[in-house]
Amino acid sequence: MKLFNKVVIIGTGLIGGSLGLALKEKHLVSRITGLSRHRRNAGLAKKAGAIDYAAVSLEVVKDADLIILATPVEAIIEIALKIAKKIKRDCVVIDVGSTKEAIVSRLSRVIPNFIGCHPLSGSERRGVVNLESGIFKNSLCIITPTAKTNKKILSKVSLLWRRLGSRVVILSPEVHDRILAFTSHLPHAVAFSLIGCIPAKLLSLSSAGLRDSTRISASDANLWGEVFLSNRKNLLSCLSAFQTKLAVLKLAIERKNKKLLINILAAAKKKREKLG
Amino acid sequence: MKLFNKVVIIGTGLIGGSLGLALKEKHLVSRITGLSRHRRNAGLAKKAGAIDYAAVSLEVVKDADLIILATPVEAIIEIALKIAKKIKRDCVVIDVGSTKEAIVSRLSRVIPNFIGCHPLSGSERRGVVNLESGIFKNSLCIITPTAKTNKKILSKVSLLWRRLGSRVVILSPEVHDRILAFTSHLPHAVAFSLIGCIPAKLLSLSSAGLRDSTRISASDANLWGEVFLSNRKNLLSCLSAFQTKLAVLKLAIERKNKKLLINILAAAKKKREKLG
Repeated sequence: MKLFNKVVIIGTGLIGGSLGLALKEKHLVSRITGLSRHRRNAGLAKKAGAIDYAAVSLEVVKDADLIILATPVEAIIEIALKIAKKIKRDCVVIDVGSTKEAIVSRLSRVIPNFIGCHPLSGSERRGVVNLESGIFKNSLCIITPTAKTNKKILSKVSLLWRRLGSRVVILSPEVHDRILAFTSHLPHAVAFSLIGCIPAKLLSLSSAGLRDSTRISASDANLWGEVFLSNRKNLLSCLSAFQTKLAVLKLAIERKNKKLLINILAAAKKKREKLG
Repeated sequence: MKLFNKVVIIGTGLIGGSLGLALKEKHLVSRITGLSRHRRNAGLAKKAGAIDYAAVSLEVVKDADLIILATPVEAIIEIALKIAKKIKRDCVVIDVGSTKEAIVSRLSRVIPNFIGCHPLSGSERRGVVNLESGIFKNSLCIITPTAKTNKKILSKVSLLWRRLGSRVVILSPEVHDRILAFTSHLPHAVAFSLIGCIPAKLLSLSSAGLRDSTRISASDANLWGEVFLSNRKNLLSCLSAFQTKLAVLKLAIERKNKKLLINILAAAKKKREKLG
């Protein structure tokens, strides 16, 4: 069953392009037009089979039934404001940005059928060369409606993600941002700082542990700079909580307090094991 | 070619047991006797084919040609002191502990042919159920001789690790500990603190990024408590360096200094990409 007829994906990078592939693979939409800031990328996405048409102008949104905003956070708002007056009245617009409060509060005012989405399928790899339709399968997608969101459209958008194999969780944009600050933005901030403090000449002697724990620091700097700033307050309080935890661990080592130290490590281990 | 005749492995957990398996698979030794604090573990290691005999008393070290100390750090010194007077004069003794200065400085005084080794093949998984002969292949093994180490024995021990597929790097115990504080002990301390500060009820909404960056916090608490304390000074200065990096990142976010923020993230990304 087709869920939407004409789809426009704006931003044909890893998430946007992979979404195109997945929607086509599952036959959920009739045709997909892709747009990219860099014209070459939309062409590559077409070659990869992620979109049917590569467009060069935002005018293509005019007859779209579903628009997917898949650019970095700041550009999502910028582009949405540009297209708000061009789209059909019943056009559904979703985004896939990593923070939701700023985007949803701004866009729900200008686009009646806007629904914020956050598929947790990102990766430190980016761009059209890494497209993969399977990244949404068994993955989490958080949808962040407001009190005003049309329930029928919310159901339809939820169904779309579930059809791609995602587990859908509904949260308010504010709760989403508070939670993601802990579960995603803080780990990224920590990973960037961890690799940042390791002398470059020692990298050849690193272990699998260092590689794993800093993998996400190979993520795009501009994209994550925008995420950090758009979820600034929540992230700052998570960073403070982390600094306190680290300071206590450091103190236990400083004072050779083996009992406290092992208690801290054992509690952490126990919590990590729940993560699977 | 057999490198050693009679081998005794003390501590038949993940590293000790896997070493047994690998040595037998490559036919590098004639027979292996295993000892474990928990008698049951040595029995399981025998069943798994990692050792030929499961012993219950340290007396078995008497006719050993090679003894491998594969217990946690503190027990390595304790056991080595116990066996020092029982072993043959030409018996080679190696350990596989994660810190080297304390162990090597103490043991090289009582065991003439002691050579500190550190195969970077550990894992957050432990114990006899996870034995795997392949964990040394394409992995790094750091060997930490002293000025007094017999060169022929050093060559033989290096050859043993290379035969198991490891890349051998020779460092002094002091340099080893300074480097590993950065490349292994700091990432562990950070991972334990990161998972420690995340509210337990949010774990179900975590992403692959959080899972990767905290994987090593599922490591054994006692083992890592000992590692942290036995490399205390080096680790404390690494923790300070990390705290500074994190504070600068936090300040950039606090002050909405996007340029500085993106510079920090881009430098980190560039360094991480060198790690492969």
